[in-house]
Amino acid sequence: MCRFVVYSGPEIPLENIVILPRHSLLDQSQHASEAKLAVNGDGFGMAWYGDQDRPGLYRDVLPAWSDGNLVDLCRMIRSRLFLAHIRASTFGETSRNNCHPFTYGNWSFMHNGEIADFPRLRRRFEAMLGDAYYAARRGRTDSELFFLLLLTNGLQEDPHEAVVQTIAQIEAAQGEVARGNRITATFSDGHTTHAFRYSGSDDIPTLYHGSGMDHGGQVLASEPLDPNTGTWTMLEAGRLYSLNKGALTHRPLSG
Amino acid sequence: MCRFVVYSGPEIPLENIVILPRHSLLDQSQHASEAKLAVNGDGFGMAWYGDQDRPGLYRDVLPAWSDGNLVDLCRMIRSRLFLAHIRASTFGETSRNNCHPFTYGNWSFMHNGEIADFPRLRRRFEAMLGDAYYAARRGRTDSELFFLLLLTNGLQEDPHEAVVQTIAQIEAAQGEVARGNRITATFSDGHTTHAFRYSGSDDIPTLYHGSGMDHGGQVLASEPLDPNTGTWTMLEAGRLYSLNKGALTHRPLSG
Amino acid sequence: MCRFVVYSGPEIPLENIVILPRHSLLDQSQHASEAKLAVNGDGFGMAWYGDQDRPGLYRDVLPAWSDGNLVDLCRMIRSRLFLAHIRASTFGETSRNNCHPFTYGNWSFMHNGEIADFPRLRRRFEAMLGDAYYAARRGRTDSELFFLLLLTNGLQEDPHEAVVQTIAQIEAAQGEVARGNRITATFSDGHTTHAFRYSGSDDIPTLYHGSGMDHGGQVLASEPLDPNTGTWTMLEAGRLYSLNKGALTHRPLSG
Amino acid sequence: MCRFVVYSGPEIPLENIVILPRHSLLDQSQHASEAKLAVNGDGFGMAWYGDQDRPGLYRDVLPAWSDGNLVDLCRMIRSRLFLAHIRASTFGETSRNNCHPFTYGNWSFMHNGEIADFPRLRRRFEAMLGDAYYAARRGRTDSELFFLLLLTNGLQEDPHEAVVQTIAQIEAAQGEVARGNRITATFSDGHTTHAFRYSGSDDIPTLYHGSGMDHGGQVLASEPLDPNTGTWTMLEAGRLYSLNKGALTHRPLSG
Repeated sequence: MCRFVVYSGPEIPLENIVILPRHSLLDQSQHASEAKLAVNGDGFGMAWYGDQDRPGLYRDVLPAWSDGNLVDLCRMIRSRLFLAHIRASTFGETSRNNCHPFTYGNWSFMHNGEIADFPRLRRRFEAMLGDAYYAARRGRTDSELFFLLLLTNGLQEDPHEAVVQTIAQIEAAQGEVARGNRITATFSDGHTTHAFRYSGSDDIPTLYHGSGMDHGGQVLASEPLDPNTGTWTMLEAGRLYSLNKGALTHRPLSG
Repeated sequence: MCRFVVYSGPEIPLENIVILPRHSLLDQSQHASEAKLAVNGDGFGMAWYGDQDRPGLYRDVLPAWSDGNLVDLCRMIRSRLFLAHIRASTFGETSRNNCHPFTYGNWSFMHNGEIADFPRLRRRFEAMLGDAYYAARRGRTDSELFFLLLLTNGLQEDPHEAVVQTIAQIEAAQGEVARGNRITATFSDGHTTHAFRYSGSDDIPTLYHGSGMDHGGQVLASEPLDPNTGTWTMLEAGRLYSLNKGALTHRPLSG
Repeated sequence: MCRFVVYSGPEIPLENIVILPRHSLLDQSQHASEAKLAVNGDGFGMAWYGDQDRPGLYRDVLPAWSDGNLVDLCRMIRSRLFLAHIRASTFGETSRNNCHPFTYGNWSFMHNGEIADFPRLRRRFEAMLGDAYYAARRGRTDSELFFLLLLTNGLQEDPHEAVVQTIAQIEAAQGEVARGNRITATFSDGHTTHAFRYSGSDDIPTLYHGSGMDHGGQVLASEPLDPNTGTWTMLEAGRLYSLNKGALTHRPLSG
Repeated sequence: MCRFVVYSGPEIPLENIVILPRHSLLDQSQHASEAKLAVNGDGFGMAWYGDQDRPGLYRDVLPAWSDGNLVDLCRMIRSRLFLAHIRASTFGETSRNNCHPFTYGNWSFMHNGEIADFPRLRRRFEAMLGDAYYAARRGRTDSELFFLLLLTNGLQEDPHEAVVQTIAQIEAAQGEVARGNRITATFSDGHTTHAFRYSGSDDIPTLYHGSGMDHGGQVLASEPLDPNTGTWTMLEAGRLYSLNKGALTHRPLSG
């Protein structure tokens, strides 16, 4: 289980989301309230978009709360679209390559949850990857695998179709155990940000849409960053949400 | 607030204390039950005695639970006397130099708690250090400072006197704020291991003596390592306990 | 011995100085050509100025060449005034607190060289620090000490006087051994950048002023970043150089 | 290009090989004399055998020269058979999972050199791995891949046959580019230690057998640890050397 947040809106310092709110991601690293584990200390990372297509990427294996660099980077770096993640590992060592976000070209991706029976099925899943995406794999997590499968399945052309197809492929390989899937993910091309909650059961990691905060932007977050500020709505499971220029649309993943 | 454990007895692999017990130090790093903070993820360290007078020292800034090396070192290294510590920092960055144990020659030292008003009084305390111990200071913690003050006050000749004098000096410099002191410490010369709990109020970090476990040794630990195995007794505050060749003696710090 | 570079001019990505030039600081980390040691692998750091008075600070203990984050940060962060440093340690462990630049409020500082006999004289030097600067000391290096002495001696009011006085104090404490001093330093308040080379003998670490590069800015660097581009002039020893709005002025340190 | 050393003989502290000799592995990390790169600062590691079948493993991403823990571990740990390695990376990030030695059960493995055209052929090589060894892959290096291929090809039953078959498989996949292979490897089951030098051209990384040192053991090392002590012989290419109970035997890899 992990915690994450994406911001989209007017350019602001990253600290306005990652550090300063009462229940910021930094606070959640020690005191997550809606996760199975209160502590998310197995590394962190963030990706942010600037003038170039390709986002910047900063990841480290320390807990977010002990990285002095993180505080200064979040104070100095401003962005109109950024993703940040703190990790509580389920599979895969604590190494930078296993930390989120994952990036590929202009795309960035974060995940919270787990693909059921992943250690046993890893080889089979990796065999499904397109060559370019196989070559791009740097770690061993189910999260990076999911991202590279999305890319293999045409994320760059049709995100909705890519998600639907990737989940179908994974479930087909899993059979019965698919019930154990718990996947909440978000990803962006630098302009539109997508997110969904999906699970094989009723147990689905939380994901909120937040708006109405003073910076004027919008947020997709595992937990509300501040219960007293802004409006927070839990996203429905089984739908792909897309946030672009301040408008949040959604579409069912099935049917 | 931190958690620690010292072992003295027949030579055993460190993992028998640090990793394997149900409520081992590794377990306490995520689930401490008698500390103000359940998480002790700001680094860890251990010191162990072998054939030489000088103990080995291993410290790192990662949380104990993410250091793959730690597990293997604890499986392979055997010792008759060792100290292990997990840190939840109060003052001083997360750096190896601020991790416990601290060592000097054949002596090793660990601490849990805090010296009241330390940031304001640091310079004054450091001015009390003997030259050799001033030169040996590598970090900024109140813990290392306390150890070096003990050494300055004759730890190598008379541990009881050194503790009494060091506390008196510190209290004299503090005045009123001495009430805020909360110090539970343990230290060893490689043969005798000492420990005490001291506080300016009723709020004193816990410290247990454990015996009767199957390895035949004895333990001084912040929390019982396994409620179902061995005998665990909370040590009284205000007394200096000394463990040598299986015998635990004690003597009041005052009077 | 270390290597460093300061840039002042139009806002550019840090990579234009730190990563991309043929003999960039990253290249110097493995192949310094005018230093006693070709390898500067004991950590690195950079400070950069933006809209706020206080610069951002990023330091790590890895060699610059193995930090994947460094490349991305330098690609994304743009600044009109920044300092970058790679370390080859003489005294003080490889820890973030011993990495340059050092910062205090709006000031930043980097150093290359050594204060003679520092381990023996450290206590005496630290006793000269003003209380606020003593409290700000986080590491053990002669470099940070020099910076905090400059601040104690009025760096914020009169940089020239602060340098002259600090060197005089140090030499007075050293006596004969002052001959062993080798100090090349640079520091900035976010607007004016100062630098000097000073030594007790003929052996003084190099420092170049570079201009005429295509980004239109100016550079103070341990080694020319590219022998084929721009104009590189070795700065004279014993003078304080000051770079402000593209104008480089200087004034003798003595007499 | 990397540097490594294996020791087999009477139990000695690791420092007698890794730290203390005039041209120890620690010295080679900054001043390798027979490698393409003088600096091997992209992490290090060591594996050592004790009472259990499975060796201990310690690896980190810091340069060997900046890891304070390394010195103490080498001073305290004694072993009759150990491997140590310093890395200068060719492919694969600086992460613990990409550091040597690699271990599997009671086997340990180190490598110096490169498999030609590896980035392009990685997927093909990984497809050759047995399921258990595919699951055991944690990094991305050609070195770990070679080790897991050896295991797939029966290393545990017949090391000579496993090496011959693995090289043949790799060359078959490579075709023309096989000329670029440069592989010097060593591996042990905790009793017998094997080593070979192999290349598709005349350019083969060095490997020496050392004996006659005062500790009475034998060494296989990239470079002689001390030109003035012991007898050092360059091993011939194209032969598998096996060291067991002080006897060094060898057998051609081909024919």
